[in-house]
Amino acid sequence: MEIAKSVQQIKPSYIREILAAASDKKVISLAGGLPDEKTFPIELMKPTIEALPEMANVFQYGSTAGYQPLIDHLTEAYKLPASHSVMTCTGSQQGLDLIARAYVDPNDTVVMEAPCYLGAMQVFGLVQANIVTVTQDEFGPNIAELEERFRTQSPKMFYAVPDFHNPTGVCWSLKRREQVAALCTQYNVALIEDSPYRELRFSGDALPMVSEFCPDHSIVLRSFSKVASPGLRVGTVSGKHSYLAPIIKIKQGADLHSAVPVQAIVHGLLQHEDFPKHLDKMRDLYKKRHDTMFEALRTYLPSECKITPAEGGMFIWVTLPQCDTFALAKELLANNVAVVPSPVFYPVPETAPSAMRLNFTNATSEELVIAVKRIAEVLKISKSKAEIEAACA
Amino acid sequence: MEIAKSVQQIKPSYIREILAAASDKKVISLAGGLPDEKTFPIELMKPTIEALPEMANVFQYGSTAGYQPLIDHLTEAYKLPASHSVMTCTGSQQGLDLIARAYVDPNDTVVMEAPCYLGAMQVFGLVQANIVTVTQDEFGPNIAELEERFRTQSPKMFYAVPDFHNPTGVCWSLKRREQVAALCTQYNVALIEDSPYRELRFSGDALPMVSEFCPDHSIVLRSFSKVASPGLRVGTVSGKHSYLAPIIKIKQGADLHSAVPVQAIVHGLLQHEDFPKHLDKMRDLYKKRHDTMFEALRTYLPSECKITPAEGGMFIWVTLPQCDTFALAKELLANNVAVVPSPVFYPVPETAPSAMRLNFTNATSEELVIAVKRIAEVLKISKSKAEIEAACA
Repeated sequence: MEIAKSVQQIKPSYIREILAAASDKKVISLAGGLPDEKTFPIELMKPTIEALPEMANVFQYGSTAGYQPLIDHLTEAYKLPASHSVMTCTGSQQGLDLIARAYVDPNDTVVMEAPCYLGAMQVFGLVQANIVTVTQDEFGPNIAELEERFRTQSPKMFYAVPDFHNPTGVCWSLKRREQVAALCTQYNVALIEDSPYRELRFSGDALPMVSEFCPDHSIVLRSFSKVASPGLRVGTVSGKHSYLAPIIKIKQGADLHSAVPVQAIVHGLLQHEDFPKHLDKMRDLYKKRHDTMFEALRTYLPSECKITPAEGGMFIWVTLPQCDTFALAKELLANNVAVVPSPVFYPVPETAPSAMRLNFTNATSEELVIAVKRIAEVLKISKSKAEIEAACA
Repeated sequence: MEIAKSVQQIKPSYIREILAAASDKKVISLAGGLPDEKTFPIELMKPTIEALPEMANVFQYGSTAGYQPLIDHLTEAYKLPASHSVMTCTGSQQGLDLIARAYVDPNDTVVMEAPCYLGAMQVFGLVQANIVTVTQDEFGPNIAELEERFRTQSPKMFYAVPDFHNPTGVCWSLKRREQVAALCTQYNVALIEDSPYRELRFSGDALPMVSEFCPDHSIVLRSFSKVASPGLRVGTVSGKHSYLAPIIKIKQGADLHSAVPVQAIVHGLLQHEDFPKHLDKMRDLYKKRHDTMFEALRTYLPSECKITPAEGGMFIWVTLPQCDTFALAKELLANNVAVVPSPVFYPVPETAPSAMRLNFTNATSEELVIAVKRIAEVLKISKSKAEIEAACA
């Protein structure tokens, strides 16, 4: 049976492939985006889990928009105006997929940052969007470029990760947030604000979400994968009712609704009095690991590598001297470190500057230092090889 | 933001709308396809639910194809050959959606029975399939028609519910199963065998699945919604590896993977020694309700109504004298009975013969008799109205 055209273009996810290879015990994986299992607030979820057998309604068919007690809780927690609502989905990944299916026809233009989240490229690839990119600096997307894209390409949406960007770790400045919101309003472009890492800020001050500056021109994706547990697969989509209605229609066909017991578990967790403490503990742990890895990178990596510290999230982005980053990643894997090379984060991989994404949330501080030393070793050998080759040329 | 073309054509699900209206306590609903909450094997799931806090791996990111212990269990239970595999999804509804997205381009032809499952029409509508229908008699689909469709329209797939069809309750005869399998093989059409009700046989002898006669030309959808709990949202897709690979690729973009704790609960349930007893008990209950409703229908409905008993599943299909079935359903709702009128089960509603689908699994036997009496009352009034109008014409 011939597969659909939309699927023919999908490349299998490099990250999931490398994750498979990285399951070898000897390999220290900095490749995934996995939270540390030890941070899962299982003790705080336990009372709800144990109460599930008494909650017959979570075992029956539920509503497509989500488990009502959780929806009610989130409507208040997110301070949604009366004209907005929130729905749950199977991880925010499903929310993004539903948004794309609800709004993007083949060849419709979608603007994304480059580099950007791989799962978003997959989703927009599946609906055969015309993906247009905008570059990024340490304060967020390049505004002049973004306006040019909005003005000349009439995109339907701008997909972005303003808080602790995946893969670069960049957190948009306040000014950049206001500028993007103003542009989205002016050009009537929907901002898809993907916010899985927002709660993982461990340095600096929290900034308003970009969507707060353009609430009626944005759809927000949130996730409980990083602050609770990814295995539960609970994420949310929120925005004005008229934005959500077609998304709910698609979800009805896509799976009727998401699993209910896991939504009840998230609801119980959010109400637990110790949940804020859990967040603090997790942030402390990740700050420690971030700082350890950052220091190690600064100490051991060749000076040509550019390392920018992150104020939250899960990743440090390391810009490298021009090289074949796939070959480098392979060489690193042979030396028992898994990383993700920059081209996989670019819709046009050939345009990617040499860089790699390093995760600091899953390995221990000790492992992070060992991994960085291994990376440094491989980079130094590559460097001397290159110098020898250059000298012999 | 303009919605995608594929969504513009979706009608909201009539069933879910009527279910909302039917939530009024006075209404006896025969409209849904809900199992009775009292049948949920919560006691048998309890040991696994209580063990979840000790199973840290179910809270971490999982594999797209599903929770491995469940996959291993099902591979054996379904007696899959080495060339086949099984994956889990968020209810079999998601499995169907993924199949459609993986294989159906706009205008590709898909054959379905008419009437047929509403959720399947939604899914194939979303991918803008060219839906071609085949009529059905009490033994299954009309074979001459089916061959004609296969020969002249070169469909990619034939979607069917051979065991206790939704909405008609028809169970295909052995001969018809063999004939359909032979045609699928001969014309290289993939059979999508949707099998949510197969375990709900309460009379007669089990027949082989159609896919057993054409294993390499079929994809099978199974569900734990009817035998365990719909709120868990666990279904499966199985077939040869080459059929499943593109489906798993799409699922990666669609939600990374389904919730893991609910898969662990299903796994525990299937291993529980009392699970077969639970199935027997549920079948006994549904047989009793089916028989009660069937007898009531035969006793109270006007003789022009054609009622065929079912050997399993959840529905009895009642063929009515020609009438406006939407108006009838509305009138019934005003008399506190919810039913689903036949046109919603037809891709071209105007071609639907007058009929209605009655569910017998959710209401008690007492309620079923009251509901049937209410239906009979309304039908008699409509009938006398029609007679008076005819006499006056």
